[in-house]
Amino acid sequence: MNFSKATKDLNVNGLDVAALKATCDLLEKEPEMGKSQFRISNQWKSGGNNRINVQGFYVAGKEQSHKSSLSYEADEPPALLGTDNGANPVEYLLAALSSCMTSSIVYHAAARGCHIESLESDFEGDLDLRGFLAVSTDVSKGYQKIRATFRVKTDASEDEIAQFYHYSPVYSMISPTVSIEVKIVKT
Amino acid sequence: MNFSKATKDLNVNGLDVAALKATCDLLEKEPEMGKSQFRISNQWKSGGNNRINVQGFYVAGKEQSHKSSLSYEADEPPALLGTDNGANPVEYLLAALSSCMTSSIVYHAAARGCHIESLESDFEGDLDLRGFLAVSTDVSKGYQKIRATFRVKTDASEDEIAQFYHYSPVYSMISPTVSIEVKIVKT
Repeated sequence: MNFSKATKDLNVNGLDVAALKATCDLLEKEPEMGKSQFRISNQWKSGGNNRINVQGFYVAGKEQSHKSSLSYEADEPPALLGTDNGANPVEYLLAALSSCMTSSIVYHAAARGCHIESLESDFEGDLDLRGFLAVSTDVSKGYQKIRATFRVKTDASEDEIAQFYHYSPVYSMISPTVSIEVKIVKT
Repeated sequence: MNFSKATKDLNVNGLDVAALKATCDLLEKEPEMGKSQFRISNQWKSGGNNRINVQGFYVAGKEQSHKSSLSYEADEPPALLGTDNGANPVEYLLAALSSCMTSSIVYHAAARGCHIESLESDFEGDLDLRGFLAVSTDVSKGYQKIRATFRVKTDASEDEIAQFYHYSPVYSMISPTVSIEVKIVKT
């Protein structure tokens, strides 16, 4: 991370910048400490309904745990033959992408001493169901295109915000496969 | 979808197979009906904490809505400078991947007349934090590898199960970028 020498604030964007810098310094000296593992388990219930549980993970050289077991319900709406007990898998994908790009902006802004006052976004993805349903083999199964709009109140420029979200792990996994069109609007 | 002629059951794996077949028949006759759009919005709270809302979507040629507004909290654990109010973005990605592969198995099995009695899975992803934190540019930001194990009680073969999950939209978006090692264990 590129830390601004001017950042004397302890807390920027709700983040402890000294702790963030200490983490980066540690990872430079001890690269092994960067090795992390994240995990979930999934239990199918019926039809399009299944439940995801999240509990343990490995970070900072040790086995850790969320303060409580987290549980999320996935389902499909009736139009896709489900019972609508939760978001569907491709909505969860947009959730992952939006939260990862958001946190990447917030963390990298904090390191540079850029203040985020507010940050909200809308994501939409175009998907042709003929791919998943194997009605046509010419149609891609995943999103054909994702559009994201970020509305952000900040002293950073649009270019800096764009630079920050490019560090997002989820963005980096999806953008080689799916075209993601991002608009940044300063409010 | 490849519908088994032998499938006379109305309900397989909790799915209305006649409705599933009718959907595929419609999409063959009217390809435009396959065009769908899924959406979320995201509101940043502080640090690594943000909230995802899911409400409307476009499916089957019309604007639709979940029966209630769905809301999910994303956060980071204290070791990653967050307040642990929810799963983190890369855990949400595994949630999306697991629920999508699960539903793809269940839906395609139903079309073939294969019965799933139980289906559960564990997912784990290896990630080197030096990528996201820009400590090293040689390290990928996303998962380096994802391992998934499915335990399934079914009359389908392991090969058929593997064929079914390859229709997953989320799998198809991530597998070109990240190596996903899948193990299927019949129980």
